[in-house]
Amino acid sequence: MAQKPSIPKGTRDFGQQEMAERNYIFDTIRSVFRTFGYSQIETPAMENLSTLLGKYGDEGDKLLFRILNSGDAFAEADFSRPLASQVCEKGLRYDLTVPFARFVVQHQNDISFPFKRFQIQPVWRADRPQKGRYREFYQCDADVIGSKSQINELELVQIVDKVFGLLGVNVLIKINNRKVLTGFAEICGFPDKVIDITVAIDKLDKIGLEAVEAEMEQKGLTKEAIEVIESILKLSGDTSEKIASMRDLMNGGSASGIVSETGLKGLDELEELFGFIEAAGVKNPVEIDLSLARGLNYYTGAIFEVKALDFEIGSICGGGRYDNLTGIFGLPDMSGVGISFGADRIYDVLKGLDKFPDGLKSSTKILFANMGTEEIEYLLPVASALRNEGVSVEIYPDNTKLKKQFDYADRKNIPFLSITGGDEIAAGTVQIKNLATGDQQTFPKGDIEGIISFISR
Amino acid sequence: MAQKPSIPKGTRDFGQQEMAERNYIFDTIRSVFRTFGYSQIETPAMENLSTLLGKYGDEGDKLLFRILNSGDAFAEADFSRPLASQVCEKGLRYDLTVPFARFVVQHQNDISFPFKRFQIQPVWRADRPQKGRYREFYQCDADVIGSKSQINELELVQIVDKVFGLLGVNVLIKINNRKVLTGFAEICGFPDKVIDITVAIDKLDKIGLEAVEAEMEQKGLTKEAIEVIESILKLSGDTSEKIASMRDLMNGGSASGIVSETGLKGLDELEELFGFIEAAGVKNPVEIDLSLARGLNYYTGAIFEVKALDFEIGSICGGGRYDNLTGIFGLPDMSGVGISFGADRIYDVLKGLDKFPDGLKSSTKILFANMGTEEIEYLLPVASALRNEGVSVEIYPDNTKLKKQFDYADRKNIPFLSITGGDEIAAGTVQIKNLATGDQQTFPKGDIEGIISFISR
Repeated sequence: MAQKPSIPKGTRDFGQQEMAERNYIFDTIRSVFRTFGYSQIETPAMENLSTLLGKYGDEGDKLLFRILNSGDAFAEADFSRPLASQVCEKGLRYDLTVPFARFVVQHQNDISFPFKRFQIQPVWRADRPQKGRYREFYQCDADVIGSKSQINELELVQIVDKVFGLLGVNVLIKINNRKVLTGFAEICGFPDKVIDITVAIDKLDKIGLEAVEAEMEQKGLTKEAIEVIESILKLSGDTSEKIASMRDLMNGGSASGIVSETGLKGLDELEELFGFIEAAGVKNPVEIDLSLARGLNYYTGAIFEVKALDFEIGSICGGGRYDNLTGIFGLPDMSGVGISFGADRIYDVLKGLDKFPDGLKSSTKILFANMGTEEIEYLLPVASALRNEGVSVEIYPDNTKLKKQFDYADRKNIPFLSITGGDEIAAGTVQIKNLATGDQQTFPKGDIEGIISFISR
Repeated sequence: MAQKPSIPKGTRDFGQQEMAERNYIFDTIRSVFRTFGYSQIETPAMENLSTLLGKYGDEGDKLLFRILNSGDAFAEADFSRPLASQVCEKGLRYDLTVPFARFVVQHQNDISFPFKRFQIQPVWRADRPQKGRYREFYQCDADVIGSKSQINELELVQIVDKVFGLLGVNVLIKINNRKVLTGFAEICGFPDKVIDITVAIDKLDKIGLEAVEAEMEQKGLTKEAIEVIESILKLSGDTSEKIASMRDLMNGGSASGIVSETGLKGLDELEELFGFIEAAGVKNPVEIDLSLARGLNYYTGAIFEVKALDFEIGSICGGGRYDNLTGIFGLPDMSGVGISFGADRIYDVLKGLDKFPDGLKSSTKILFANMGTEEIEYLLPVASALRNEGVSVEIYPDNTKLKKQFDYADRKNIPFLSITGGDEIAAGTVQIKNLATGDQQTFPKGDIEGIISFISR
């Protein structure tokens, strides 16, 4: 009995149309990474579990796909103990960041720091599949490690600006700084409540000032602390005015009178970064968003998040600075900053906004109909000459009904068709038809330039 | 304690230099596939084990990497039975052919046949790692399914010819035909001994005619059969002469007098294919090689193998026609033909023959040295303008010793360096140095064209 074929849940096949569209996104991102001097690396799909475990929290450990040891995996297992850890030594890559950290430490003697790398590879997570969430999906990451300069942050902002400019998507680039958030917690007098305070700030839009304050009180913050938070929430003006007001607060000007050195350092970073952004000039809006709480557990400086302006979807790109990514693998004090593009969401945005270029609908430019062996042998040098010029050409392989060959061209969106038979051979010509307009022309067999000009219009 | 980082045996990290070289190979192959109208698909890294098991023989089943079911894999296991099959439902892709067959059957209603697809993805095999053999490696396959025309075989030969032409590698393209081999066995009177007879023919070069005949006798072939084989081994002349001589033998002209219809059909295919090859014109030599025994278990028509002429290594590309690839998944009678490029061996050939282009050694064209914040802000618009023209530009992120910045350019093989300081800012200029020649020029800040012309020489 034949099997009914299927693929594991949460995974996907990509057919030619989706591949063309996905490649368009990846190629765009890749080309921009390259103009900024980022170079590509690849790491194996499988890593040792010792590399992966404990890096993504307890929940992450559960979501790792484990690979059964090859050979007789159970031969020496102790069945009185949990088996998974005994019979699996390898797991599938869960993200690109931990393999990158492992790569940097393992190859540190061959790497020129600062090391600017990008990586576009699939990752696997045993998450419950649902709309927009897959068990296999691509990540597109760029990171630079070994430099603390805000030039790196600037370049990531420029990369985001350029990528979405090329893709034709208007975005808002939001920037926060972990040190500033720490500073707020310090001047509130609750240095350990960074996350509570950030979450409260985040809720301002949704629940309003009073509700936020009530929640703060519940979390055990004092009246005085809430007063400080209130002054943060009321910050207004453009970026430099906001930074100036925050500097006052951090410098002892808040209700608590506390000075936060960390907060001031964060403001210096923000100020320098925005200075660079102004000098470089970016097209999409960039703003400070103090509610940005992405990666509070590991980011130590800048935090980025990118939203599409004309399409309702979550963050389509994000990242930040981390100060000790490689420490766990034995290389301390390597500061880095990185960004990750969410290919699947960007795909949905381009689909939703109808931003994929028309050219992606067809890969083949011209189909030579098959009228028989003699005709094909006559056409072969023409097809070769066109291919040598980079034109994608198909010869219908079978000498079958023309209707069937037309249908093939139609279903594959092939824009030009050549029906070349005995008359053309006798005259030494090739006939080509534009299937969209019906426009038809005849060319001398050797006039490749003429043919290319006709099919390029 | 920090872990000493490593990767699973048989897997590899690819750093920037190797990635540039590998991408050069993949991009070349991909571009050629595209000009022949092949379009790309991708399938998931993990397939259901039911899709994979039994497709690669017993040995292949053992070499599959199995993925432990997520959740508590052992919760419902029956420990009195073998566990692997109970706790693993998925495995890693072992090649691209079986997933392609599964794809074709699963999506048959959305596919326009003949279906020309290519696929460039990694595969995984739990083979014992050794020099040149990895547990994770890329395959680059092109197949067309749903057409029996020899035009398809021709195009695969043209693709091989073009790819290696672009890569600068001289190759010999060897062609055999399974039906011809069957025909030989039939006219020998031993239709079930195709493999023994082919292996014997294959050994002719190495052990000579007499030893081959002795071996044939050991395998139980009669004197008369050996006489027939001898006449095959003595075939000479160019391709059309060889085909004509073989046609005589198949047509009852051999010592046995047996006629083989299958053999004659195979010769028709070979003759048609070589006719097309002559009409199309290929640059590398193409020859019939009756000893080609690749894939005798599944190929049913043409068999291809490609050897590098100037570098000693095994086959670097191969393929053939199969008549029932999709039958096991419930779609019978779909004939297809495909070819697979061995990326790792091609890499070794290009390395060995020093054929990688020089341009791959550096991804960044120009480094702007960092002389301070003011200088950087002055240079940022220049860097952006160059990047907009597709030039890869780096700004050294840290304002550190020039020696360190020079070393960075040197180690990354960056060919141009700009040291722009106070004097240049005052004059509104940018200074650029060719690090190889020492040649140095100064440009007005806005003269992007002039800069590009200088760094493109």
